[in-house]
Amino acid sequence: MPELRKDPIVGRWVIIATERGRRPLEYQPDRAQPRGGSFCPFCPGHEDKTPREVLAYYKTTPIATTASGAALSAPPDPKDWTLRVVPNKFPALMIEGSLDRAGEGIYDKMNGVGAHEVVIETPRHDAVFAQLSEVEIEAVLWAFRDRIVDLKRDTRFRYVMVFKNHGLAAGASLEHSHSQLIALPVVPVNVAEEMAGARQHFELKERCIYCDIVRQDLADGRRVIYENPGFVVLAPYAPKFPFETWVLPKTHGAHFEDAQRLQFAQLADALRVTLRKLNVALDDPPYNFILHTAPFAEREVPYYHWHFEIMPTLTKVAGFEWGSGFYINPTPPEDAAAFLRDIRE
Amino acid sequence: MPELRKDPIVGRWVIIATERGRRPLEYQPDRAQPRGGSFCPFCPGHEDKTPREVLAYYKTTPIATTASGAALSAPPDPKDWTLRVVPNKFPALMIEGSLDRAGEGIYDKMNGVGAHEVVIETPRHDAVFAQLSEVEIEAVLWAFRDRIVDLKRDTRFRYVMVFKNHGLAAGASLEHSHSQLIALPVVPVNVAEEMAGARQHFELKERCIYCDIVRQDLADGRRVIYENPGFVVLAPYAPKFPFETWVLPKTHGAHFEDAQRLQFAQLADALRVTLRKLNVALDDPPYNFILHTAPFAEREVPYYHWHFEIMPTLTKVAGFEWGSGFYINPTPPEDAAAFLRDIRE
Repeated sequence: MPELRKDPIVGRWVIIATERGRRPLEYQPDRAQPRGGSFCPFCPGHEDKTPREVLAYYKTTPIATTASGAALSAPPDPKDWTLRVVPNKFPALMIEGSLDRAGEGIYDKMNGVGAHEVVIETPRHDAVFAQLSEVEIEAVLWAFRDRIVDLKRDTRFRYVMVFKNHGLAAGASLEHSHSQLIALPVVPVNVAEEMAGARQHFELKERCIYCDIVRQDLADGRRVIYENPGFVVLAPYAPKFPFETWVLPKTHGAHFEDAQRLQFAQLADALRVTLRKLNVALDDPPYNFILHTAPFAEREVPYYHWHFEIMPTLTKVAGFEWGSGFYINPTPPEDAAAFLRDIRE
Repeated sequence: MPELRKDPIVGRWVIIATERGRRPLEYQPDRAQPRGGSFCPFCPGHEDKTPREVLAYYKTTPIATTASGAALSAPPDPKDWTLRVVPNKFPALMIEGSLDRAGEGIYDKMNGVGAHEVVIETPRHDAVFAQLSEVEIEAVLWAFRDRIVDLKRDTRFRYVMVFKNHGLAAGASLEHSHSQLIALPVVPVNVAEEMAGARQHFELKERCIYCDIVRQDLADGRRVIYENPGFVVLAPYAPKFPFETWVLPKTHGAHFEDAQRLQFAQLADALRVTLRKLNVALDDPPYNFILHTAPFAEREVPYYHWHFEIMPTLTKVAGFEWGSGFYINPTPPEDAAAFLRDIRE
């Protein structure tokens, strides 16, 4: 069982692999590309090489039927999947067991209980996410939503982190297009800080800070990369990384999983256009995207606003950033937005 | 003039290069090694290729005399330097000007005023830091102290971040051994969080959390890597990264620059032994080290305890870590300490 340990000064939790600790020389020098090649456990026909799926969509599945949770009348051909969600074969956290919080002198720990799932976004090994069709990307978003709704029922969990690592420099270890969900028994520190900051703004102004950002940046225009009826894509005012990009719904809502059905198609369009623009501008960069959404325990709150953040991996995080939490960004967001806005994807 | 901009939600400041923003295709794919080769601006004889030094030590300089700030009677041969501190030729912040704090609607910014200095740690191009003699490493530590004492006099500054990037993956762009200081007009968010966490522990327990860590871990022994009369080297209980290592003075003190003279030699020994052990265990890994010390405005405080943190760059930070602030560490600190303890450096 992995262990969750708490930093005694800043209160940050870390996940320590205690089963079979990695020895010094198992940290390999950098490979240039994620593992690809001869055998891929995510390809059709290799379904038995992953744990049994917790969700699958099929060629015959109308998206909205599955998303609403209705059972299908006839079982589809198991080889006919278009998307699968499977437990991670090498999970960071274990699904079984209780937390067993305990102290060790001044230190605090608990069992590394959580869910770690992989969304296999397409059966096609060579298709990268940005090249999927709008309908395929929408299906990935529905899968995020369906899994969150299901994991929320497990009372041990307080948050689900949804993210994608694309390219080796961004942490992807397998080539076949996939994203991940990690359900956690605590609200992560970064999420708690975002919630606290947004709450503080609301207490002062009685307005959602993200609604303020959408309003001011749409009026200003300099940092707008793209918009459609439901979403605006922005280079944020104070980005940590060059070409960092936020995708925000224009209407207020704290929980991604409560989004309106129409928003899924609009979000798929916004994500697809944005990632294709980034690919053209930055020559298919490695990147991460992360869903920012309110913790389970929060009711519909007036101060938080779910959104996606996309961060191309272009610079290295070094001593200054690790020590200070300050980031040095060599490209002003106004310049980044102008470049991306002008690109025909 | 670079711009400091504040994230409107979490309050993190970022440094935006506004002079000449880097364009998309100027982000180059990874090189394997820092720039070395034919010409090095840090080598002796190339003193005119860096801005004029703000501090230098010479072959004839007794360390303690310089460190105490006494003037030297006869000027040494300018080519005879053993260590130079020069302003960074491409500084992240500019030394001239006032802050001019201002709003832009809901956003906050100020001028990017600060000092950015480079410590050229040795005249020898090929010597890496861990291979310097104890006396040479001690001189580097005195240089950090001398520069902090001087920068503290500038009332615009609230903190000096001292750090080293070794190896390309850890952010070093030049091969010749060097470290850096960045003086900032605000207390960085990571420092503020560490101070707040330590203060909270003190309010509850009336003890310094770091003194508690030193006491408990010395008694426990499993995470101790090395100790000498003044310092203990630990694998911390909840490390973000595999083989993360902390070097803590055994006696309490909040400000590095107020350390006792004897501690400089003891710290040089502890750093040198630790880095040599890491080099053996991990085959000369890229790494960062960071000085953690109290902000200028804090008087001698009972709750904070300066120390160094060393972080080898072995794993990639990916979507999960960026989103959550949780880190997944594949090597338990007890294992890392056991490996390092047993190495004869």
